[in-house]
Amino acid sequence: MIENASLLSKYITHGVYVIAVANGAEQNAFTAAWVMQVSFNPPMLAFSINSEHYSYRLLTAGKVCTVNVLGQDQLAIATHFGSSGVREKMAAYAWRQGIASAPVLAESLAYFDCKLNHVCDAGDHKIAVCEVIGVSELNTGWPLLYWQTGNMDGSSELYKA
Amino acid sequence: MIENASLLSKYITHGVYVIAVANGAEQNAFTAAWVMQVSFNPPMLAFSINSEHYSYRLLTAGKVCTVNVLGQDQLAIATHFGSSGVREKMAAYAWRQGIASAPVLAESLAYFDCKLNHVCDAGDHKIAVCEVIGVSELNTGWPLLYWQTGNMDGSSELYKA
Repeated sequence: MIENASLLSKYITHGVYVIAVANGAEQNAFTAAWVMQVSFNPPMLAFSINSEHYSYRLLTAGKVCTVNVLGQDQLAIATHFGSSGVREKMAAYAWRQGIASAPVLAESLAYFDCKLNHVCDAGDHKIAVCEVIGVSELNTGWPLLYWQTGNMDGSSELYKA
Repeated sequence: MIENASLLSKYITHGVYVIAVANGAEQNAFTAAWVMQVSFNPPMLAFSINSEHYSYRLLTAGKVCTVNVLGQDQLAIATHFGSSGVREKMAAYAWRQGIASAPVLAESLAYFDCKLNHVCDAGDHKIAVCEVIGVSELNTGWPLLYWQTGNMDGSSELYKA
């Protein structure tokens, strides 16, 4: 491991999102920061996801997701969906139906309705490359920045692995 | 094309970077916003790159790059390396030698020295997945955010393609 790998979190700018996935009636959602646009035409997003997580299994089976943008005052939502082992994780917030059948977080600033195109390798994660098939603004505000969340996700420990 | 694809630029948070590539003595650099971390261990970055550009050819041949982080007051650098057809593009700024032989922008806030691991498809771009083999802070400041650059890159036109 290189020294100072934690500078990635300081200098690579990320937003904060709740990514919701579905496979039929099974649904889950998780907080993510490693999200970027990757294509203009077709419009595509990519995000990095831990392939050992339940959400990865739903995503690769159902092939749909929504990327829901959190605003400056929504750190509590990031914390909620960033925690594992929370009971009734989905029930704590209101959801709308997305175009592609993954749920949409009603409180988000905006959401991107996505179909999974393919997955590629990325070290200890996988990159999910998704086509954006719908987008809408839901609420007014400025996007939350990942560095504003502090060490919410305990990532400083992960660089020591 | 979906309506409102330009909302990607508004709601997906990106920083602004100069990515420098090298293949032996051949060097080039370009401005990029579509950059994210993708792995903790090994530490990896990914960025989306237009495969028709000269820099893509250098990157895939030389397999090294640096991701140089621009600060709040460095919009002029972003504009310089975001323009095509600029003569002596590299000579306008000072460079240091990176570990992996791609040049480092001396004025950047921080840089990530990278080896290209692999490339994967992403619509009208390619995703370059890179292992970070070195990182250093060079200057003090806050990272520039992509939305602060306005329509510097003319991207609003690209959604109409």
